[in-house]
Amino acid sequence: MNKMVKSIREAIQLAGLKDGMTVSFHHHLRNGDFVLNMVMNEIAELGCKDIFVNASSLFDVHMPLLDHIENGVVTGISADYISAGLGRAFSQGVLEKPVQFRTHGGRPSDISQGNTPIDVAFIAAPAADPMGNCSGKYGKSACGSLGYAFADAMFAKKVIVITDNLMPYPLQDWSISEDWVDFVVTVDAIGNPKGIVSGTTQITRDPVGLVMAAHAAKVIEHSGLLKDGFSFQTGAGGASLAAAKFLKDIMLEKKIQGSFGLGGITGYMVDMLQAGCFRNLMDVQCFDLKAVESIRNDPRHMEISAMQYASPASRSAVVDSLDVVILGATEIDTDFNVNVHTDSNGYIMGGSGGHSDTAAGAKLSMIIAPMFRARLPIVTDKVTCVSTPGKDIDVLVTQGGIAVNPKNVELTQRLKDAGLPIVDIRELKEKTERITGTPQRLPKGDRVVAEVIGRNSQLQDVIYNVL
Amino acid sequence: MNKMVKSIREAIQLAGLKDGMTVSFHHHLRNGDFVLNMVMNEIAELGCKDIFVNASSLFDVHMPLLDHIENGVVTGISADYISAGLGRAFSQGVLEKPVQFRTHGGRPSDISQGNTPIDVAFIAAPAADPMGNCSGKYGKSACGSLGYAFADAMFAKKVIVITDNLMPYPLQDWSISEDWVDFVVTVDAIGNPKGIVSGTTQITRDPVGLVMAAHAAKVIEHSGLLKDGFSFQTGAGGASLAAAKFLKDIMLEKKIQGSFGLGGITGYMVDMLQAGCFRNLMDVQCFDLKAVESIRNDPRHMEISAMQYASPASRSAVVDSLDVVILGATEIDTDFNVNVHTDSNGYIMGGSGGHSDTAAGAKLSMIIAPMFRARLPIVTDKVTCVSTPGKDIDVLVTQGGIAVNPKNVELTQRLKDAGLPIVDIRELKEKTERITGTPQRLPKGDRVVAEVIGRNSQLQDVIYNVL
Repeated sequence: MNKMVKSIREAIQLAGLKDGMTVSFHHHLRNGDFVLNMVMNEIAELGCKDIFVNASSLFDVHMPLLDHIENGVVTGISADYISAGLGRAFSQGVLEKPVQFRTHGGRPSDISQGNTPIDVAFIAAPAADPMGNCSGKYGKSACGSLGYAFADAMFAKKVIVITDNLMPYPLQDWSISEDWVDFVVTVDAIGNPKGIVSGTTQITRDPVGLVMAAHAAKVIEHSGLLKDGFSFQTGAGGASLAAAKFLKDIMLEKKIQGSFGLGGITGYMVDMLQAGCFRNLMDVQCFDLKAVESIRNDPRHMEISAMQYASPASRSAVVDSLDVVILGATEIDTDFNVNVHTDSNGYIMGGSGGHSDTAAGAKLSMIIAPMFRARLPIVTDKVTCVSTPGKDIDVLVTQGGIAVNPKNVELTQRLKDAGLPIVDIRELKEKTERITGTPQRLPKGDRVVAEVIGRNSQLQDVIYNVL
Repeated sequence: MNKMVKSIREAIQLAGLKDGMTVSFHHHLRNGDFVLNMVMNEIAELGCKDIFVNASSLFDVHMPLLDHIENGVVTGISADYISAGLGRAFSQGVLEKPVQFRTHGGRPSDISQGNTPIDVAFIAAPAADPMGNCSGKYGKSACGSLGYAFADAMFAKKVIVITDNLMPYPLQDWSISEDWVDFVVTVDAIGNPKGIVSGTTQITRDPVGLVMAAHAAKVIEHSGLLKDGFSFQTGAGGASLAAAKFLKDIMLEKKIQGSFGLGGITGYMVDMLQAGCFRNLMDVQCFDLKAVESIRNDPRHMEISAMQYASPASRSAVVDSLDVVILGATEIDTDFNVNVHTDSNGYIMGGSGGHSDTAAGAKLSMIIAPMFRARLPIVTDKVTCVSTPGKDIDVLVTQGGIAVNPKNVELTQRLKDAGLPIVDIRELKEKTERITGTPQRLPKGDRVVAEVIGRNSQLQDVIYNVL
């Protein structure tokens, strides 16, 4: 048995890729990824048409996809997140069929249940052996966790591992094991390390961000959830990281040992692990070099698959045990519905990622956002797009006050008792509009360019083209 | 979400077990296992009938199964190995339907392909957390690897974890993750540590065994396979272990570093790892305390699932990369077919386990067996039962000479050149019979009591009742 093939092209041919089929990619190499473009170029040169691309996320490094769309090679896209450059093109309607947005939990759920079958999965592997055992932890392109690739590996009809770091068999400490892998290809480089992980993610120094972060930490402190066994997820944005820093100080001062930090892991979460704030980290994706080093060396820092992270088709996922998550928003409406798919002008520039999944699972889902950005208020009557339904959002933290979802009667009282600046979300909206003026609602097009598919596979909202 | 239930009975009820369904068990607790009996007693008391038991292996600790068979609770059995006490009862025909024997690779293959669906899988877990993340490495009932339980966990309709060591969430270093687990039950003890793993497995001191072991090591040394990257599996029998010891000395003397040791892992394989004979151990089951300690503490010693170990339905399994395996036999015929299911009287007292799988995968499959046991010759015209087909067996090592399967022309020459006592298997048979006399072939019954299902799901042979 020999799985090693000479080129990506040969692997594609051996996998039997044909017109109309679906290929899949994971996004741990983020904006440094070379693999998706290399593969799609080969597919184009082989003359394949009408290919559906199921990617866990797409970044602007993947702009060449637009050529493949124009040439009819790619006619369908599913992703959990699409960055602004590509997003703008999709908002302008370059793809005939609507883009399918899923969540980091909904994607593996749909894959595992057979709703979105994958013909050929491509695994970008920073380390692999000739039988396909592979890991993200080792090599020049190390990205840490390969969490989003597990469902693809386990359920795709054919699985191709692409590596720039072929190791002798058996690769020690594999993530995805050989029993799922059909072919292995070596290339010079699977990615640009500078784009894969940032050297360090930075805490905000912006005074507005620091005020929000301080509020956020106080909300957690007084939520009733901050006690031994506490679990926590936060994003990699500057204010979220600052909130984590403040939270760490509180936990250390109060000698609280949490159970786990979850996510998308940054060096700040590693700091919290090392300081004893958590017993463990559960990691579906590493955001920076410190996280990669930690998952490689520290057995308390554990890789999880996207199925274990967030899939509603799993018997349980880690998000179901999560106490607090801090999330972002481009818009939030007075019903607490959150938009993270488009900017306020309606252009696609993001996606749910794990937003909806963690919001649904966590006991306390908190949005941190400034009252306005570029003179556009965050709080609106109705979000352009419902990325996460308001029923799953508990608190909005801004520099101008903290709005609690009215369903949380007890939490509201707790935070008021703690002297925090609680404000009705409609008042917050009015207060903001007194500064920014009331923005005119932009006219939207009449063509659906994206479907927002909720984590339970339901059509949650649609995104229209931008005029 | 709460997966903790008060009792095994409640878990069975919540899992919806009904008459005619299939339950499954893994055998890492071996002859110390309490779980299968506890579960089957509850099933019996609930009044269920016509249950099919799919166990990776059955030991004499499971003799109470015979009562459940007598009472109609259990009407079907599949196992990869059945020890002598239970085996005798099956050979006498206590079960109406034939027992289905599978292999350690064929079992997960049939499960993963849907040929043998499991309604409720029971995972005996030496450590587990309340969401079902579980491990065999920790706790008073530690057994090391949980390799055989993975397919059950991944493919059963309902999965129940039974533990005597509930740990806080998340359990660090889990083997089977929460996303597969429906319910968790705690009990006082899942097994008797004395029966789970032996304190130490012992090298033979028997002179015949030592001669065979020395021959075996020499065969490997001169096979052309013993070079850097060499990989090896051996059983836990005294002569096999002695062969490993001799092989270790040769490897150290020649400064050969192998790639991996595979199996069922004993302390002797751990010694070889620690001495630098292998880079890694790949472990589907631990046989002794030293192996358990090693898999717990040494990252070079890695757990593998039975799918990764040996399943022909996997895109590859570790057995496909195996150089040499040393195996046992109760009988071998002049076509090199091997019997490990019955003794020479026809009574069931074993099973393939990984015999057929490793023999099919390894470049060199070697049987070590004495020329005769209790005056019954090992070599026979035709084995009572074909456990592993002769095409997959390369060499038979006895104290009276080494028989090479005639298909191996080059190997025969290599071993002759090395001065090893090569003998035709028919001559070996005659030579043995000159000592023992020619045994009378026992009359067999006319009722099929067991089907030997090959690793590729084909009916390979049947076993008749003993008169």
